[in-house]
Amino acid sequence: MSEIRQDISTNEWVIIATERAKRPHDFMKPPKQLPPEFDPKCPFCPGNEGMTPPEVLGYRQGGGANAPGWWIRVIPNRFAALSRRPGDGEPKRDIEGGFFRKMDGVGRHEVLLETPKHNLYFPNFTDKQAEEVAIALRERYLALHHEPNIKVVIIFKNHGESAGTSLLHPHCQIVATPIVPQSLRRRLATATRYFDDNGGCLYCDYIEAERKAEKRVVEDSAKFFVVHPYASRSPFETWILPKSHAASFGNQDIDSTKELGHVLKRVLGKISTMLGNPDYNIVVHTAPVNEENEDYFHWHLRIIPRLTMMAGFEIGSGIFINTALPEETAPALREAKAL
Amino acid sequence: MSEIRQDISTNEWVIIATERAKRPHDFMKPPKQLPPEFDPKCPFCPGNEGMTPPEVLGYRQGGGANAPGWWIRVIPNRFAALSRRPGDGEPKRDIEGGFFRKMDGVGRHEVLLETPKHNLYFPNFTDKQAEEVAIALRERYLALHHEPNIKVVIIFKNHGESAGTSLLHPHCQIVATPIVPQSLRRRLATATRYFDDNGGCLYCDYIEAERKAEKRVVEDSAKFFVVHPYASRSPFETWILPKSHAASFGNQDIDSTKELGHVLKRVLGKISTMLGNPDYNIVVHTAPVNEENEDYFHWHLRIIPRLTMMAGFEIGSGIFINTALPEETAPALREAKAL
Repeated sequence: MSEIRQDISTNEWVIIATERAKRPHDFMKPPKQLPPEFDPKCPFCPGNEGMTPPEVLGYRQGGGANAPGWWIRVIPNRFAALSRRPGDGEPKRDIEGGFFRKMDGVGRHEVLLETPKHNLYFPNFTDKQAEEVAIALRERYLALHHEPNIKVVIIFKNHGESAGTSLLHPHCQIVATPIVPQSLRRRLATATRYFDDNGGCLYCDYIEAERKAEKRVVEDSAKFFVVHPYASRSPFETWILPKSHAASFGNQDIDSTKELGHVLKRVLGKISTMLGNPDYNIVVHTAPVNEENEDYFHWHLRIIPRLTMMAGFEIGSGIFINTALPEETAPALREAKAL
Repeated sequence: MSEIRQDISTNEWVIIATERAKRPHDFMKPPKQLPPEFDPKCPFCPGNEGMTPPEVLGYRQGGGANAPGWWIRVIPNRFAALSRRPGDGEPKRDIEGGFFRKMDGVGRHEVLLETPKHNLYFPNFTDKQAEEVAIALRERYLALHHEPNIKVVIIFKNHGESAGTSLLHPHCQIVATPIVPQSLRRRLATATRYFDDNGGCLYCDYIEAERKAEKRVVEDSAKFFVVHPYASRSPFETWILPKSHAASFGNQDIDSTKELGHVLKRVLGKISTMLGNPDYNIVVHTAPVNEENEDYFHWHLRIIPRLTMMAGFEIGSGIFINTALPEETAPALREAKAL
């Protein structure tokens, strides 16, 4: 008989198909062919800077903006989901016929190019490069969070086609929205309720509980705790949580940020060797701009390898069926080589 | 500038990328090769009845149970996500260490084989066959909703690999759960709030508003209203709503059920010709068993063609970015041939 587990961050249920669960190594993907180091048609490759909007940040030695020589570069997304309103006025809101509520799509949408090399993935970065990607993300977070009309700054990464990317060149994205997503509001409400009931941070206490339980821990290093959560929605879902409490990604200091780069490089390396460079998404969960200093939320990062398909049951009910046991995937990943 | 629209059923936001929106015909998929009419290895093909658990329902003329001769057949899923507990006792619940809440995976998981033919899809069914699939789904709903420990009966369909199916033989699935999904609880809360504020059903009033707005209506027939909702989360998302109020799928009479079969055949036919037999999911949203006769919920069915990939932004924020305008896809689908 399968098990139904409850996710502490949302109270949502997950079905863990314990009986037909696959072994951790069954999720290995056939290796993909690596693209070339340089693609002349790629707008993110050096020399093609003119194919993108002017950069908002460039880590480079010498050389001017929007020219080669950078090792990290941030640009507005040419196909922005949300964009700046001239004059930065309040977004117009409208409701038509009582049912059709809308507002202007104001916000920001940026792309962070993690490396000039078209085919160099995070696990193969130098430690220094991994650190600087994390530092650049923080820099952009801090640049955007107090811009007019911004309520949340959402950082994410799509790696591979089945994770929703069309451009292979390694990059992250940053979307700053003029609204707080309902799903974040619910996470905040769940954590606030916990705080009121228990006088502590839900996530701080969760780290402690997972540490005691031991069996789902991937890594417990100086500043970060890496776990396959009890109610994992999909195989090898991996959470990276800072060990000292902070509601916002923007609140971490430079040392922690560097360490985050190292942890990410190591964990992504293990996932890559163990599963054959699978497609994955990374999402950063962080507090809304106006709640960055609250006691009841705790920023963290989730890696979701795209090993299974979301089907009708998940879409219709919001309940995921996971065919892997986090108690089995976590030890397997712990032992895997980081590259 | 894009538009951010609010979904009336969840209050969640959707970004409609109006400026970079694709034209309806841009979503056409390259045609897939049709499988053979009979696959000797398929457990759902006639003659292979012994490869599945014993059937719980068979529409057949002559012939015994679990033998060929059926035109519709329902069986327990051999790889059930939820299953019956011997003795039908209450599912065991447990909470370990304050954080790890779980319960037994009791419930039901059935598969409805829509046709004996391995390669015959819904739009190609006779009207009679389409009717009877809908009738058989209703029959199973009514058989399951009062079984012990069942809180919701969820009907869905996965068509094609990218919609999460591994078996091509046309089938639907029915999962009866011992819990009410959080996402359904929220939909109920949203609709209840609307009912309290306005004294009417949210969905009944929404149908009226979309009828007046006109531009997103795909079909407005005797018993069903078909629309591309204002805040569509993905291109060609299609809702089919019964025009007379009913909270539960199980509440419709036989005539409406037959009509549902016809509408589904027609709409899926249009989607298939217009988009090249794309993969899709169908999900039925229906009230929990204990709320089947409430005034504030309204069962309906959603078809979600899998034309785009869910990426990190959607996973992290719950906000979808839709690159099609329902105002453009609805008229295009309205004019499409049903096959």
